[in-house]
Amino acid sequence: MSSMTRGSQSIYFGEPPYILSSGSVVGKKEGEGPLGTQFDMVDESNMLGEETWEAAESTMQKEACLLAIGKAGLKPQDIRYLYGGDLLRQGIATSMGVEALQIPMFGLFGACSTSGEALALSAMSVAAGYGDRILAVTSSHFGSAEKEFRFPLGYATQRPLSAQWTVTGSGAFVVGLDKSHIRISGVTIGKIVDYGLKDSQNMGACMAPAACDTIMRNFEDFGRTGEEYDHIITGDLGYIGSEILHDLIKKKGNDIADKHLDCGKLIFDQETQDTHAGGSGCGCAATTLAAHILSKVEQGEWKRILFVPTGALMSTVSYNEGESVPGIAHGVVIEHC
Amino acid sequence: MSSMTRGSQSIYFGEPPYILSSGSVVGKKEGEGPLGTQFDMVDESNMLGEETWEAAESTMQKEACLLAIGKAGLKPQDIRYLYGGDLLRQGIATSMGVEALQIPMFGLFGACSTSGEALALSAMSVAAGYGDRILAVTSSHFGSAEKEFRFPLGYATQRPLSAQWTVTGSGAFVVGLDKSHIRISGVTIGKIVDYGLKDSQNMGACMAPAACDTIMRNFEDFGRTGEEYDHIITGDLGYIGSEILHDLIKKKGNDIADKHLDCGKLIFDQETQDTHAGGSGCGCAATTLAAHILSKVEQGEWKRILFVPTGALMSTVSYNEGESVPGIAHGVVIEHC
Repeated sequence: MSSMTRGSQSIYFGEPPYILSSGSVVGKKEGEGPLGTQFDMVDESNMLGEETWEAAESTMQKEACLLAIGKAGLKPQDIRYLYGGDLLRQGIATSMGVEALQIPMFGLFGACSTSGEALALSAMSVAAGYGDRILAVTSSHFGSAEKEFRFPLGYATQRPLSAQWTVTGSGAFVVGLDKSHIRISGVTIGKIVDYGLKDSQNMGACMAPAACDTIMRNFEDFGRTGEEYDHIITGDLGYIGSEILHDLIKKKGNDIADKHLDCGKLIFDQETQDTHAGGSGCGCAATTLAAHILSKVEQGEWKRILFVPTGALMSTVSYNEGESVPGIAHGVVIEHC
Repeated sequence: MSSMTRGSQSIYFGEPPYILSSGSVVGKKEGEGPLGTQFDMVDESNMLGEETWEAAESTMQKEACLLAIGKAGLKPQDIRYLYGGDLLRQGIATSMGVEALQIPMFGLFGACSTSGEALALSAMSVAAGYGDRILAVTSSHFGSAEKEFRFPLGYATQRPLSAQWTVTGSGAFVVGLDKSHIRISGVTIGKIVDYGLKDSQNMGACMAPAACDTIMRNFEDFGRTGEEYDHIITGDLGYIGSEILHDLIKKKGNDIADKHLDCGKLIFDQETQDTHAGGSGCGCAATTLAAHILSKVEQGEWKRILFVPTGALMSTVSYNEGESVPGIAHGVVIEHC
């Protein structure tokens, strides 16, 4: 067996699978942000020719998948399995989005950590010989997410400063055996971490403890410190969650502030784009990885990174019934080769 | 590599993982049904000491997990990973239910096919060496599901005869390397199958085409006919969906009617329990497998079965926006040894 378990939560791949290609599709605001020119497709209307936010999100997923598959020189029938998910109830953005591809599929839900979950399972499946090429995809949409978790946009509700802006975007990745310059060398699967926070408008704070837990577990399982990563890149802690993460990690005797990046901070311009605490959503980490991070790894500018998408586990029902908002985070070690 | 891919959608395990134990917890109506004496725990109140249907469903999941872990002579920390999901928006029954176990977890969504998805991924992970013991769990609850998909029970809405009754129940399974008399010898992962049906009150009809597709694909990938299975057991097609499945399979030149069973028909008494088209929900297939089917396999009464949980991919949002209700089904080959 070429792959080994490492410590209690991690897997180290003896023959690491490759990320062969990626596809990223985003909306207008993301296109106007600092990474705007790096996305494969920007849809200025945010609707992708559809009549509802949900259908737009589905179409975005399909397009991201087709872009990733096409860039790898493949067709949908060359993909053995698909791992995908989104934020909407019963994962309809994914079900309706990938249906046309007719790839056998595993539906996932990990809130905004889903891109880490999908990449981890794709890498695990390729490394185990369950498929030569496997597709990972996630998405989020500002319109569908506001409707799902808060109110439809037409209500024009005011957002608190601790709120994050759900990214309109979908990122897809082909993971496989064919060689590229990007490998997934290991994964660290997260536990649910609950500090008892109940403010669904401060997701960064709810997710930071889970990010801390997964990062520290990754260090322990792989016998590493932060020094061995060029960057540790969380999914969507945003400005508030990132500060909390730095404090929590310091309390554990480490300091990652100088090498920590967060996709929720990278994707929007804090000065000009008025997103309050930064970006969020399944699509935030996925599109930032696809459009920005992977090219840095591919070119060798970054040799090894720890990608840690973070999710807040809640629904309007759990929130209204007084439940707390626990977090979860999955770590994916991505290396240049 | 001991495991091989078979055909386009299936995996055959050279060294099949074992199902070490199972746990089943159900509500009052299920306890009064034909399988009533076979469940591990029946809660007459349906609330498991909680104040909301959602919290009751979460507690049911936790109890089912603890039962399965305990029956295998293990503790939660002996379980390396957990695969779980449920029907509620953002999978909160699972997140809130398994949180206390502190097992690294992969959240899933496959509607009522989730027990098949969780068992397949657990078996794939064990066979790949990613863990010696992995837990699969799913649940549903009549109260939380009616509220999620239709109306809260207090509204006392009338159900059409084609509607199925969501099972209040949770089933959990420990899959591992330790020997038992039950093995998972292979899996067939389903595609999304959409015949364009839009009636969310006739789920059986929406899911039957997906069941047909996965069963036929299983036969093809493994070079088998129905003759090589003692039973083919679908998750929750119920009375209407089962008839449709038989017709669809006949059109493909096969006939499985004499060896087909459906958990939605097994779990309630059609004469006395007034469930209309039968039982449904993630918990239907999971608890029927845990309490009834596995004991038949364990004792060798059934040597090889094909377990095919079926899911209808929809939400109130997709339904209200006019989308169809596609289906998905995952096949798990379970053998006596």
